[in-house]
Amino acid sequence: MILERATVVGLGLIGGSLGAALRDAGVRVRGFDVDPSASSTAERRGLIDERSDDLGAAVAGADAVVLCTPVSATLELLPNVDRLTPLSAIILDAGSVKVPVVERLETLPGAARAVGGHPLAGKETSGPEAAEPGLFRGRSFILAPSSRTTSPTLRRASELVSILGAIPRVMPANTHDAVLARTSHLPQLLATVLALDVREDDRPYIGPGLRDMTRLAGSDPVMWRDILLFNSANVVDEANIYIARLQEIVAAVQAGDAQQVEHVLAAGQRAGRALRGAAA
Amino acid sequence: MILERATVVGLGLIGGSLGAALRDAGVRVRGFDVDPSASSTAERRGLIDERSDDLGAAVAGADAVVLCTPVSATLELLPNVDRLTPLSAIILDAGSVKVPVVERLETLPGAARAVGGHPLAGKETSGPEAAEPGLFRGRSFILAPSSRTTSPTLRRASELVSILGAIPRVMPANTHDAVLARTSHLPQLLATVLALDVREDDRPYIGPGLRDMTRLAGSDPVMWRDILLFNSANVVDEANIYIARLQEIVAAVQAGDAQQVEHVLAAGQRAGRALRGAAA
Repeated sequence: MILERATVVGLGLIGGSLGAALRDAGVRVRGFDVDPSASSTAERRGLIDERSDDLGAAVAGADAVVLCTPVSATLELLPNVDRLTPLSAIILDAGSVKVPVVERLETLPGAARAVGGHPLAGKETSGPEAAEPGLFRGRSFILAPSSRTTSPTLRRASELVSILGAIPRVMPANTHDAVLARTSHLPQLLATVLALDVREDDRPYIGPGLRDMTRLAGSDPVMWRDILLFNSANVVDEANIYIARLQEIVAAVQAGDAQQVEHVLAAGQRAGRALRGAAA
Repeated sequence: MILERATVVGLGLIGGSLGAALRDAGVRVRGFDVDPSASSTAERRGLIDERSDDLGAAVAGADAVVLCTPVSATLELLPNVDRLTPLSAIILDAGSVKVPVVERLETLPGAARAVGGHPLAGKETSGPEAAEPGLFRGRSFILAPSSRTTSPTLRRASELVSILGAIPRVMPANTHDAVLARTSHLPQLLATVLALDVREDDRPYIGPGLRDMTRLAGSDPVMWRDILLFNSANVVDEANIYIARLQEIVAAVQAGDAQQVEHVLAAGQRAGRALRGAAA
């Protein structure tokens, strides 16, 4: 694809990083955010070439528009973005839940040039201050087409993903949401609850293990509220499976069943090592 | 204290690292392990000055003996170690549960020169291959005296801890076990169960968050079996509190209660940030 001009809608951690990565690759990047201070920070940090505080002006002349807003904002913005964006441009999002986005994409007049997206990248910090061009390097970037997404659209979106240094992986939206409930959305909940568990007096006794396990708790609450609610059926299913397994091992601990406790820990060790060997 | 010669009993990750740190500080270190291959590795890697495959010979002439074995082995070894070690030497352990160890220390003829210990350091790997002298640098090293531990013993143990680069913190064994159930033992269980949750097909979709959250799952199953069982009452209490909180937020997700979900996530974000600012 010829990607000369891209517009990033939503200049938080993901949008800001995406802008910076595209700029580094020579793409001219225009940024839009409803929060003027996010746009100012993005401009000041050089994450975008120029800002526009008007959505129509922001997407005019773009070859690609990427929505990096919380899922609820993406759903709200999509009809306008589709209406205002030249039909020659592709439209992509970067939200962590795909079924509601892809369902919305299907209803758009420009559905053929639109595709769902999700970069498996992030950190516990948020906002354009935390953005960095290398955020996507070597990471999976999932592309979830709708029934109306055309092959050229998917190909162009894959090219954009490759420009970011990420690995495009095409998968159906419903598979994405089921897998991510397990690998990302449940872990977020677990980290939040664990962070709430620890008392102020405990702080001198916190080791690196707990710090790693609560890192995700620092993530943006509004973004995560949307993710958990828009994927609630999968998240609730996975949480219930998790709780049942946890109760099982806690029962073995309570019963003093050394053999069973060691058995579960050994299985967890094998699984943990396999996970660490796996790439995202 | 004059610490010229130390003996490390148990040459895994903790014992091997402790030997290496003491050696770096000019202490002459003798190592003992029931597993001859652990002793060989420790010797080959220079974690100890010399090995001894006989416990009596290993502790002879030592100024300090540190037991770095799983808690069940420590409880079994303590009477012999006390009997064989010169009364001029202090005895310390490095186990993650303190009540059963300190109770055992109180029964020893040499109880006055013995004190419980626990370095808040570790990693997901185990064995002398993973040992490194810097493991304890800047970490808390808890000292849990028994009712019979003397002040000079506590002072000498603190000096040994300082030689490792760690920060000695004195606290009662039962407080230690209650706090660590929350900050270490429950997190270990949560990581194990999460690692077991993830399927092989999920692996390409694993981001840095999940990797961090399952890192602890890689820890040694035998050591952790002992920790969980010897601290079972506290671990079960903390797990039940955790499960109840998790069920509460899962119910809010299921009910689509956006306000409550965002409220919990925001509280978790504040707690998570406070945790990351805290030092161990």
